[in-house]
Amino acid sequence: MLHIIGLGLAVDGISKKGIDILKSCKKIYLENYTVEFPYNTRGLAELLGKKKIHPANRKFVESLRIVDEAKKLDIALLVYGSPLTATTHISILDEAKKSGVITKVIHSASIFDAVGETGLQLYKFGKTASLPNLEADSYINIIKENLQIGAHTLILVDIGMRFEVVIKKLKEDSEKKDLTLKKIIVCQRLGTNQSEIFYKGFEKLEKLEGEDEIRAPFCMVVPGKMHFLEKEFLDNFK
Amino acid sequence: MLHIIGLGLAVDGISKKGIDILKSCKKIYLENYTVEFPYNTRGLAELLGKKKIHPANRKFVESLRIVDEAKKLDIALLVYGSPLTATTHISILDEAKKSGVITKVIHSASIFDAVGETGLQLYKFGKTASLPNLEADSYINIIKENLQIGAHTLILVDIGMRFEVVIKKLKEDSEKKDLTLKKIIVCQRLGTNQSEIFYKGFEKLEKLEGEDEIRAPFCMVVPGKMHFLEKEFLDNFK
Repeated sequence: MLHIIGLGLAVDGISKKGIDILKSCKKIYLENYTVEFPYNTRGLAELLGKKKIHPANRKFVESLRIVDEAKKLDIALLVYGSPLTATTHISILDEAKKSGVITKVIHSASIFDAVGETGLQLYKFGKTASLPNLEADSYINIIKENLQIGAHTLILVDIGMRFEVVIKKLKEDSEKKDLTLKKIIVCQRLGTNQSEIFYKGFEKLEKLEGEDEIRAPFCMVVPGKMHFLEKEFLDNFK
Repeated sequence: MLHIIGLGLAVDGISKKGIDILKSCKKIYLENYTVEFPYNTRGLAELLGKKKIHPANRKFVESLRIVDEAKKLDIALLVYGSPLTATTHISILDEAKKSGVITKVIHSASIFDAVGETGLQLYKFGKTASLPNLEADSYINIIKENLQIGAHTLILVDIGMRFEVVIKKLKEDSEKKDLTLKKIIVCQRLGTNQSEIFYKGFEKLEKLEGEDEIRAPFCMVVPGKMHFLEKEFLDNFK
């Protein structure tokens, strides 16, 4: 049996259900390539009853060896946030189904929940845009489509990109595609004790440094049409 | 201090962080009017160290008395799912800020995460539609807007509505507004042991009964433009 268990956003974000299931698992893997952890993952073993946790990189996870192992043993794959936000993990579910391996997904808090701290209503978010560590700028089309229907856009960022690089790219790509972005929202480490939200224009975001420097993981939001209560709440973040 | 703590989707869905915080809270409230719990909430007290849990209905929560109490004591408000998916709880945060009360939100799994079990990519969901227990049909506009940009639509349902009533209303309202819906997805109790997913046309959904009868909480999804992997996964649910 294969358990795919969400770790939530903080080091102690795993659910009671997740902790209980781990007690009966014979082998525990930690997926470590789709995220920059906002905490030291060595602390996780302590929290989870000192079991050994095997790191699982892209090559290992995509090899689907884990599905083979789960034919014989109870295996857990720990995933930061909520497991099904990344398409990789849906593929594992699919492969497991085809191989006759029973799977169980334990959901947990993800950035899709935590972004509610901006005060923007989760109901009014449109499609999510992914800003890649490449020259490509097609993610700007997603923002445009959402704005057409008044929806907010959550922008997720490729792993390993520095904040200055991301802001510069977003500014250039939007200008190139005739999209006028004024103030945007930057969310740092939501769901942890270091969470912080900024709502500023590009000039000010480009100058963030020292204590205000943005640390990974971070994401951005382009607000769409706002209700006055959303606007009022957002104006608290400067 | 006011802690707004998500319970996740199952009876043991609360995070380790949430459980630890409750240990130091002087009073615990359970918000019980925006959701139909898929479990007996009396079991929660047992799980949470046998503390007394006070039910909090709409009148109590909207009176904001909880913010007043949190000026003097450490108070927790437990919310099914993830706290910020409902606008009510953002209003509490706002009111607390204005009153100088420190707040902390503990996120947890919500339907926005769990709907990934359909195999549809969470990135490609558009705005969320709310089907009301009223004659109003403006929620159909949200589905239309999302379809325009190829996005999937999650449809949430007013509390207390029976499945047959909901399906009939969705069918009639979409016809009235010239929207052709063929097959839709119905998700029952996602994140619990009774979770089930159906992907069928209206005629078949209208006839679900006996063991297949849909139990609350449930939601629906209207798929937008699908990647072939999404389609393949979805076709597992009949």
